[in-house]
Amino acid sequence: MTPSTSSRRTLVKRGGAALAGLSVLRLAGPAHAFQTPTGGEVVPWLDQPEPNPVPEAIVRQLDWERLDSWLTPPDQFFVIKHYNEPALTETDWRLEIGGLVERPMTLSLADLRARARHEVAFTLECSGNTGLPFFAGGVGNAAWAGAPLAPLLEEAGARDGGIEVVFWGADAGEQTRGEVTITERFARSMSLADALGSDNLLAYEMNGAALPSLHGYPVRLIAPGWYGVANVKWLTRIEVRDSRYQGHFMARDYVTIREEERDGETVWTFTSVARDRLKSAPAKVTKRGDGYQIMGAAWGAPIAGVEVRIDDGEWRPATLGEGAGEEYAWAFWTLDWGTPDPGEHSVTSRATAADGEVQPAPDDPFLAAKTTYWESNGQITRRVRIA
Amino acid sequence: MTPSTSSRRTLVKRGGAALAGLSVLRLAGPAHAFQTPTGGEVVPWLDQPEPNPVPEAIVRQLDWERLDSWLTPPDQFFVIKHYNEPALTETDWRLEIGGLVERPMTLSLADLRARARHEVAFTLECSGNTGLPFFAGGVGNAAWAGAPLAPLLEEAGARDGGIEVVFWGADAGEQTRGEVTITERFARSMSLADALGSDNLLAYEMNGAALPSLHGYPVRLIAPGWYGVANVKWLTRIEVRDSRYQGHFMARDYVTIREEERDGETVWTFTSVARDRLKSAPAKVTKRGDGYQIMGAAWGAPIAGVEVRIDDGEWRPATLGEGAGEEYAWAFWTLDWGTPDPGEHSVTSRATAADGEVQPAPDDPFLAAKTTYWESNGQITRRVRIA
Repeated sequence: MTPSTSSRRTLVKRGGAALAGLSVLRLAGPAHAFQTPTGGEVVPWLDQPEPNPVPEAIVRQLDWERLDSWLTPPDQFFVIKHYNEPALTETDWRLEIGGLVERPMTLSLADLRARARHEVAFTLECSGNTGLPFFAGGVGNAAWAGAPLAPLLEEAGARDGGIEVVFWGADAGEQTRGEVTITERFARSMSLADALGSDNLLAYEMNGAALPSLHGYPVRLIAPGWYGVANVKWLTRIEVRDSRYQGHFMARDYVTIREEERDGETVWTFTSVARDRLKSAPAKVTKRGDGYQIMGAAWGAPIAGVEVRIDDGEWRPATLGEGAGEEYAWAFWTLDWGTPDPGEHSVTSRATAADGEVQPAPDDPFLAAKTTYWESNGQITRRVRIA
Repeated sequence: MTPSTSSRRTLVKRGGAALAGLSVLRLAGPAHAFQTPTGGEVVPWLDQPEPNPVPEAIVRQLDWERLDSWLTPPDQFFVIKHYNEPALTETDWRLEIGGLVERPMTLSLADLRARARHEVAFTLECSGNTGLPFFAGGVGNAAWAGAPLAPLLEEAGARDGGIEVVFWGADAGEQTRGEVTITERFARSMSLADALGSDNLLAYEMNGAALPSLHGYPVRLIAPGWYGVANVKWLTRIEVRDSRYQGHFMARDYVTIREEERDGETVWTFTSVARDRLKSAPAKVTKRGDGYQIMGAAWGAPIAGVEVRIDDGEWRPATLGEGAGEEYAWAFWTLDWGTPDPGEHSVTSRATAADGEVQPAPDDPFLAAKTTYWESNGQITRRVRIA
């Protein structure tokens, strides 16, 4: 039994009604096309990522060559940890909704579970993924379930002047600003309008089971379409405020810096990591008999197509599989490579979004002008040796 | 002729139609009540601010004891300069409106002047004012005139995804972030919704004359109700963007840090300096014959009342003068002190806003929990010796 079918069976056990909207069940045809064929083998990439020098922060990465299920099993799903790993229990955990609201609320996990349950398939990517030579597996796709955020915010009722919503995790660490060293809890904010987006969830399930501890047990924010950092784990407080929140992970870290041209002059821009960018990656090359196949994933926008280039050849259209056209989840793609010549080859993919946007080349001026590793969505080339 | 009447005459010369909304003309009665009485004298405060250690940044401060006009003459109006003082000319200057807009625009000063001219009386305060022992004159009140911003943004037409508006000045300086040292132009941003606020001006006049160089010639943003830093001087570019802008003056400087309590736990909050806070200050004590009078100003919100406390006495209501009830401009106030006992006295004022908010005491928990000097709107006490 593969992790994929395991996930699906768990989901199915939860009952059809809750799953009506879950995309994973809609695409029965190509569901298993991504798995390494029976009797086949994975041809390993030559260019493995460098050893991870920060295992305390990048705790786990996706192993692309093991990827064979559209939903990533939690124990294969990447983990980034900024501070400690809080040990929260269902008994003690509470979520406060406060600040500039008419009706502050305190919610237990039972309170959240008693509310409408909503599911979304969402490919979560760390905005630093592929921006550093040791970090190429900071992405995964899961079915998240929980209580929609917007109705809760509407029940709490933002007061006049409330424009900003801060999401606080229970994890904390030391930060120094000027002469002050403080113990800052992890926090990210977004505008009230963004927080009221209809897809945001207070998620208590990942692939049909309780959130694992490292994925934010008991509750994390799931903000579909936003980079990982916005999806606050170990969530304990939501606060409406009257001015922008500029905590460490909003204002100092997770800021993209670019040198750009404006009317003939250079300006530097500093932007807050926010919504996902269009991206794809070759996942693995498989071989059965004399036939080779390339498989990969594309995400960050509804995917309309993926093309693949071998060495310096033409771009060839890949076949889209599971997830094609999904709003927030990755699409799998495959390319039959036939019987390539022996020797070393490069494999590059580029995704096209439903709105016509094309994943940029790595030397695209917009990417080349960037001095930080966030939002590195340039095309990815992998190398493989055919015997 | 006082600077005040000079300003008024200049304004009147520009014609009644343009001035119909200008508050300064509405309050003829108490207009001169704030001036030191004929034959009177100012009794100097004992507690003068410390010498200014950063004259390159805090270029000029309001001299409270000289204050005798509701509109502050530009050469008495405080000046903060973050970088250089650009030498812009009307011939060369252009304003670009670009980024995520349907119709990018390039405007000359003549283009701006050809549009509807709007005026607003607005008390501009540096958010650092009274947060440092050498900085107590970072506030002034002027009549600003220019072209409303919102119609220009609407003509340019924000495209889908445009949520943020960055205002770039021509002034620039070096900043280091991580391993990158860059020449960053001064920039502040706000949400598109805030930028579309009906009172924002692309201001080319201050008190009826062209903006002086140090006040941002030829054009600055005037964002009534916002602290000074948002009112970008030497404005040359306005850009609509799809994510939050986190330049130096948004994300690193002009961030207020507070230790606050939430549900029994300490959290640190980091907020972007945004809208003015309610504030007042005693301006001067005057003497004529045996009679003493205390004068001051209150701002940051429409002012409903000001009270004054002498030494440890009761709070006594002051008389509101020019500007009472103004939306964005300060209100002058006076208190007849009669014939106080000789010796040293303290004078404290506190303002009440139209919505009932009261200016906090300096040891108010909300202020005491603050570790940065921004937004120090606690009550101000001055000391004076009566002979």
